[in-house]
Amino acid sequence: MHSHNFYDVTVWAAEHQLDVFADIGAVINAIIAEIKQRQAQVDVKDGGKPGATIFIPAGDYHLKTQAVIDVSYLKIVGTGHGFTSSSIRFNTTPDEIKHWHEVWPGGSRIINDLPGNQADEAQGAAILVERSGNPRLSSLEFENFCIDGLHFVADASGRPDVENTYENGKTGIYIASANDSTRITAMGVVYCEHGITICDADALTIDNNFIAECGNCIELRGSGQASKIANNLIGAGYKGYSIYACNFGGLLIAANNIFPRGKSSIHLSHVTRSNITSNRLHSFYPGMLILDQGSSENLVEGNHLLRDHEPWAPMQDYDNGLKDNFGMVVISGDNNSVIANHLSQCIDAQYLKFPAGSDPRPVAIKVQAGSGNFIATNHIVGTTTQTAESKALASACFNTQVAALLTTQQLQALPMLHVVVTAEACANTVLDCGRAEELSIDLSANTVRALP
Amino acid sequence: MHSHNFYDVTVWAAEHQLDVFADIGAVINAIIAEIKQRQAQVDVKDGGKPGATIFIPAGDYHLKTQAVIDVSYLKIVGTGHGFTSSSIRFNTTPDEIKHWHEVWPGGSRIINDLPGNQADEAQGAAILVERSGNPRLSSLEFENFCIDGLHFVADASGRPDVENTYENGKTGIYIASANDSTRITAMGVVYCEHGITICDADALTIDNNFIAECGNCIELRGSGQASKIANNLIGAGYKGYSIYACNFGGLLIAANNIFPRGKSSIHLSHVTRSNITSNRLHSFYPGMLILDQGSSENLVEGNHLLRDHEPWAPMQDYDNGLKDNFGMVVISGDNNSVIANHLSQCIDAQYLKFPAGSDPRPVAIKVQAGSGNFIATNHIVGTTTQTAESKALASACFNTQVAALLTTQQLQALPMLHVVVTAEACANTVLDCGRAEELSIDLSANTVRALP
Amino acid sequence: MHSHNFYDVTVWAAEHQLDVFADIGAVINAIIAEIKQRQAQVDVKDGGKPGATIFIPAGDYHLKTQAVIDVSYLKIVGTGHGFTSSSIRFNTTPDEIKHWHEVWPGGSRIINDLPGNQADEAQGAAILVERSGNPRLSSLEFENFCIDGLHFVADASGRPDVENTYENGKTGIYIASANDSTRITAMGVVYCEHGITICDADALTIDNNFIAECGNCIELRGSGQASKIANNLIGAGYKGYSIYACNFGGLLIAANNIFPRGKSSIHLSHVTRSNITSNRLHSFYPGMLILDQGSSENLVEGNHLLRDHEPWAPMQDYDNGLKDNFGMVVISGDNNSVIANHLSQCIDAQYLKFPAGSDPRPVAIKVQAGSGNFIATNHIVGTTTQTAESKALASACFNTQVAALLTTQQLQALPMLHVVVTAEACANTVLDCGRAEELSIDLSANTVRALP
Repeated sequence: MHSHNFYDVTVWAAEHQLDVFADIGAVINAIIAEIKQRQAQVDVKDGGKPGATIFIPAGDYHLKTQAVIDVSYLKIVGTGHGFTSSSIRFNTTPDEIKHWHEVWPGGSRIINDLPGNQADEAQGAAILVERSGNPRLSSLEFENFCIDGLHFVADASGRPDVENTYENGKTGIYIASANDSTRITAMGVVYCEHGITICDADALTIDNNFIAECGNCIELRGSGQASKIANNLIGAGYKGYSIYACNFGGLLIAANNIFPRGKSSIHLSHVTRSNITSNRLHSFYPGMLILDQGSSENLVEGNHLLRDHEPWAPMQDYDNGLKDNFGMVVISGDNNSVIANHLSQCIDAQYLKFPAGSDPRPVAIKVQAGSGNFIATNHIVGTTTQTAESKALASACFNTQVAALLTTQQLQALPMLHVVVTAEACANTVLDCGRAEELSIDLSANTVRALP
Repeated sequence: MHSHNFYDVTVWAAEHQLDVFADIGAVINAIIAEIKQRQAQVDVKDGGKPGATIFIPAGDYHLKTQAVIDVSYLKIVGTGHGFTSSSIRFNTTPDEIKHWHEVWPGGSRIINDLPGNQADEAQGAAILVERSGNPRLSSLEFENFCIDGLHFVADASGRPDVENTYENGKTGIYIASANDSTRITAMGVVYCEHGITICDADALTIDNNFIAECGNCIELRGSGQASKIANNLIGAGYKGYSIYACNFGGLLIAANNIFPRGKSSIHLSHVTRSNITSNRLHSFYPGMLILDQGSSENLVEGNHLLRDHEPWAPMQDYDNGLKDNFGMVVISGDNNSVIANHLSQCIDAQYLKFPAGSDPRPVAIKVQAGSGNFIATNHIVGTTTQTAESKALASACFNTQVAALLTTQQLQALPMLHVVVTAEACANTVLDCGRAEELSIDLSANTVRALP
Repeated sequence: MHSHNFYDVTVWAAEHQLDVFADIGAVINAIIAEIKQRQAQVDVKDGGKPGATIFIPAGDYHLKTQAVIDVSYLKIVGTGHGFTSSSIRFNTTPDEIKHWHEVWPGGSRIINDLPGNQADEAQGAAILVERSGNPRLSSLEFENFCIDGLHFVADASGRPDVENTYENGKTGIYIASANDSTRITAMGVVYCEHGITICDADALTIDNNFIAECGNCIELRGSGQASKIANNLIGAGYKGYSIYACNFGGLLIAANNIFPRGKSSIHLSHVTRSNITSNRLHSFYPGMLILDQGSSENLVEGNHLLRDHEPWAPMQDYDNGLKDNFGMVVISGDNNSVIANHLSQCIDAQYLKFPAGSDPRPVAIKVQAGSGNFIATNHIVGTTTQTAESKALASACFNTQVAALLTTQQLQALPMLHVVVTAEACANTVLDCGRAEELSIDLSANTVRALP
């Protein structure tokens, strides 16, 4: 007797006269119903409910029925994350597209055909995880398949470039109830307004995924603890978060490469005693890393942050609305550590925006409120691209991140305000982050050692 | 002809009239015997012994015979790490449990039914790896299955809460002989006294596993070099190590989220030229990170360490016995680097323990012995939870790590001794880790720059 | 109907009367031809070209025809990275080998039998990826198989130890054309002159691979952006790079364990705004980390670097030709950050080489050219092994990295030049990296704070 606990969706659907390519959601739900029927006893010989694996071979699978998971130990696994840039494709002319090899994402690809619901992101989720009672759902695993929201749609403004709106009310995976030891790895999510949203996570792993061209990429909501977001390639739209978490303790955000756009690259709200270490963050706007709502005792360390100007024509009309005195890194909270980071801002003066009367230098690190923050040995570099060579390079390239290739030798210095501690903050320590004239800090209320 | 080198344990066992659910160990051993018979020639056309894959679909598999591996290139792979909190379950009343959806771990789950042997942990291992002669065993891979020790049992004290003892003489995987390029990924191990124990490792990978509620989680014994423990979620019992290594050079411990309890989160004994970087460590006791036995030239950098008080009633009677002058980080060795870490201690005065006559401040970093250690730009934060809001939060929550959610605004300052260098140590350098009164260092024997 | 998009090479080859063990390259090409025929339509119901998976069970597969990939979303996946040390095997006497259990690498092993071509490394690649037109190839995935170059061959000098030359004109995977979201994970590559070479990468992932005993391991050529090399075990030959990248922006190199030998451990040429964080680097020669050709605004942080002397007799005649005034870390570029690293050099005086008249101290960090570099809180440790205990340890061990196990207590101090800023460089900042006598910096042209 071989195991009943491994389901190839194409095999099982064929056996049950279901068309998995027309609606994989209905097939997944039917499989889960069978699993629950077969694994009904809570305890048989020290076991009874081991869960099962749903295997999705490479293919295009429409989803017209939301898949709903309410059993522990379910693994859904495909054989390809399948990302391609739909954003480039939708901003390429029909004439050029004619000659393209392929136009859609691929791999083990779930096409989210749900109507989408901006008011309730759970409604528009291809996969919804929810269960009441005890214990929490344990050890759900999602691995190496693709969830594609297909199109963005017009927002209220009725603008013509609807595919650039990052809005469609669709979600990749929404976990609504408390969960333990969930594992999301090697996934691809594209063109969903919300990529992965997880409420009330404990010991969560989000590792080595590719979540890009989504309105928001990863959102940890409710509350949570002791989790890990690492080794991912991520980039949200200009209205959303690449990584957001709230009410969390012990979150490790490490070794992610977070590219534009993203209203924020990382936004932590009321998050405590967590790490943001060894990441690479790239943004086109101020406010790329925000700790607010009393986020305390976090460590921001060993990260590379780059802010430059949107180089891609189709997106140059849009930004997150923040001005350049806002700060690249902004803290409202206590006892945080910002140590050994590199912050680069490479932008030409005509793109900088300031409130009337403000210091005309962009801000790197700002302590908006709070005390006991420790900001040491961060290296802050400002440059402008006003040279012939750099302009030529920028205009020659098709993609969105070309400015990252310009070297300092092709640039000129841009004066920056390295660290600002506002009057609302006191008793903070700032060491070796800039010369005296590059700091805006009340020396009587804070401890400062400027560079000579 | 298709490959003979892929074994689904359920298919192969059925073909051979074996009950894999009753004893998967006997099935694995029989498969290995077949592999060795089929792959008997050392060199046939530039090959001959490629190994094989043993596939374990989701299911509950009892193991009554120890699985013994003595061939290279064997991969055992399942489809789910299957962790659930047995600790919460065993500390829940029978009445409440009645209504639970499930009570046991799941996924591809091996239930270790061996008798257990505390005197010889290899004896109680579900999987034992051992081979004499040359070369060393190469490229064993263990991936994405669960090993469950099922129960902890009474220790000598005969205490009633046997399931909280973290003792049963059972081990998940024990590698007894020298090995090269072993790979342990996406595994789950639960309720074993020893999770993964590996002797004489070279170029080992332990990545992205979930090893928790084990007496000890990861132990590297004998000696070893050039290995990696990264991206894991780990948490040992109050008697054991979350990560232990001895006689090792070039060990990279990075981006792990190590939660309580753990006698130590990381204990390195005679380990040299290794990294502990970008981890998050959380412990309920002093001594959470120990480098001893002359551990030298290691880099402890970019880690977040939190020590607070055990909030969970069932475990509040137990700790590791160390007093608060012991130190959160303790070094006996030379030329180590402790740079750019954040250390938080959040604990109320009544829980602190000191030897008679000692300084009544808990110690963050202690150089117990050695010279040439370099301790710079670490941020140390002490707080107490003595506010109404924080007490309410702590009492309202069921899980073990709630204090991590308290923000500094809900706390009061706790004076700490930031760095202690004992009289046995000299010629160490301590920079920017605290104000003069927060340091206990002989300034004539060491180099110190205090914060102003 | 089950999916047609999953190919077991052994099953498909048998169905098509092909011998996959004699030439897996021909089988892969035939499968790709079938995929292209089946997936010919660019857009059918929002999809049409999802790609496919080629599954390689464990086994020895000769490759006599280069596999050529020109479709997106193709995944090639095996069940074992299969590394073993061919270097130890080829330096063991035939008498000893007689008693070995196995002599070749294993797992899902592709034996690259192509003739090899040192003039054109694409020609000698087991797998060549190339496609013209648009869009770029997306989401190729290579996972958990082995590519073995089998033998190194004599170089021009006609030396007898041909297996130590690291030259054979063979490549594991060569990606020749622009590609997006490629994923290379859990692979093994051994005894190829070039392991993985990728041109024009965007959003590339190279994670958790084992690429060792190759002439070069990972080379990113052409240009590229927003990519990640993380969690790998890597070690090149004495003539090659462990990691090389050029013309790249936003490369994250994190948590790799890079062992000897490697002409350089990491060499970045005209690379900007990238991270080298949380790695462990071990080398036997100077020049282990090089940023040149105007590499700018990069962050080198939280790494452990060890340089010691080649302990293994068969390789002691070879090195990379650099002298000890070259530097362990060498920068020619602007505005880079080198913060919070640990650098150890453990070597006896008789092995050090200097140009006539130069300072007889080996150099740790050198700014060869450039301005605005920020070098802070790096800990530099020099030792020699001239004690009886350490000599005994070194002579007793068979492997290549024993010196890493010596503790400082077994060593004596070796004076080092901690930081050198040459006369070609100016306006750099060096803080807390050594005492005044350990720095060679023009204080009038740079900002320096020496340790007291």
